[in-house]
Amino acid sequence: MLGRVNHIAIAVPDLDVAEKSYGETLGAKLSPRQDLPEHGVTVVFVTLPNTKVELLYPLGAGSPIQSFLDKNPNGGMHHICYEVDDILVARDKLLAGGARILGDGAPKIGAHGKPVLFLHPKDFLGTLIELEQV
Amino acid sequence: MLGRVNHIAIAVPDLDVAEKSYGETLGAKLSPRQDLPEHGVTVVFVTLPNTKVELLYPLGAGSPIQSFLDKNPNGGMHHICYEVDDILVARDKLLAGGARILGDGAPKIGAHGKPVLFLHPKDFLGTLIELEQV
Repeated sequence: MLGRVNHIAIAVPDLDVAEKSYGETLGAKLSPRQDLPEHGVTVVFVTLPNTKVELLYPLGAGSPIQSFLDKNPNGGMHHICYEVDDILVARDKLLAGGARILGDGAPKIGAHGKPVLFLHPKDFLGTLIELEQV
Repeated sequence: MLGRVNHIAIAVPDLDVAEKSYGETLGAKLSPRQDLPEHGVTVVFVTLPNTKVELLYPLGAGSPIQSFLDKNPNGGMHHICYEVDDILVARDKLLAGGARILGDGAPKIGAHGKPVLFLHPKDFLGTLIELEQV
C-alpha cells in the first residue's frame, strides 16, 4: 500500500530560526513561505534529492499544530506523509484492519492540493501518518 | 551540505506490533530483525521506493532509546538521518556555525557500517538529526 515518503513535517516555534537552520546552517534549498489559511499553517519546504521536509508554523487562531508546539516548545517531528495510489482503497483496507482514521474518514484536500487522510497515532507506534493520493 | 534522507527512525515499544503495523496493515516490505548490541537496539527496516523507515527497539540494558520510550510510551519519531558527502567537513562547518554535536564530536560507525554524528536537537527545531557519510 505504501509508496514514497512524500515529506516529513517538522513543527517549528520560530520560522526565522527554522529557515536559518535548514537554509544556512545545514545548507539546504528552501521554498518561499506559503500561507495556507485553510490549514492553519505557514509552510516552507526543504528540497532534498529524494524527498522533502515541510517546516510548519502556526497561522491564525486554532492552528492544528499549536497544541503540539505547546507540548514541544522547541518544535519537533510532527508527521510523516506516505504516498498511496488510491486513498479510498487505502482507507477501506485500513478500516477493515481495525485502524482509526482521524476526522470523519472523508479525504480532505491537503497542502499540495491532493486528497489526504490522517491516521490515529496510537494505532501506528505513536506516529501521526498522513496518506496522500498522488 | 544535506543530501538524501537516508532514513526516518521510529522508536517502538513492541516490535511484533510494529512489524504487524508496517508489514501487514500498511503493506510495506520489511527486512529481517537485526540485533545491533553495540548500538543497544534491534532494528527492522521498512523499504520504501525513495527512502527507509528504521523501526528501533531497545536491546539490552542502557539502550539509547529507552529514555525516549519512557517519555513516549506509544513510541514515536526518534530521528531523521541525512546523508552528507564528507562528515568531517560537515561537522567543522556546523561547529563553526555554533551548532552542537552530541558526544565527543568524533564520528562513530553507525548501524549501516558508515561514519555518523548526531546533532543537538535544541539547535535544530527539537529534532534529533543524524548525519551519515555515504
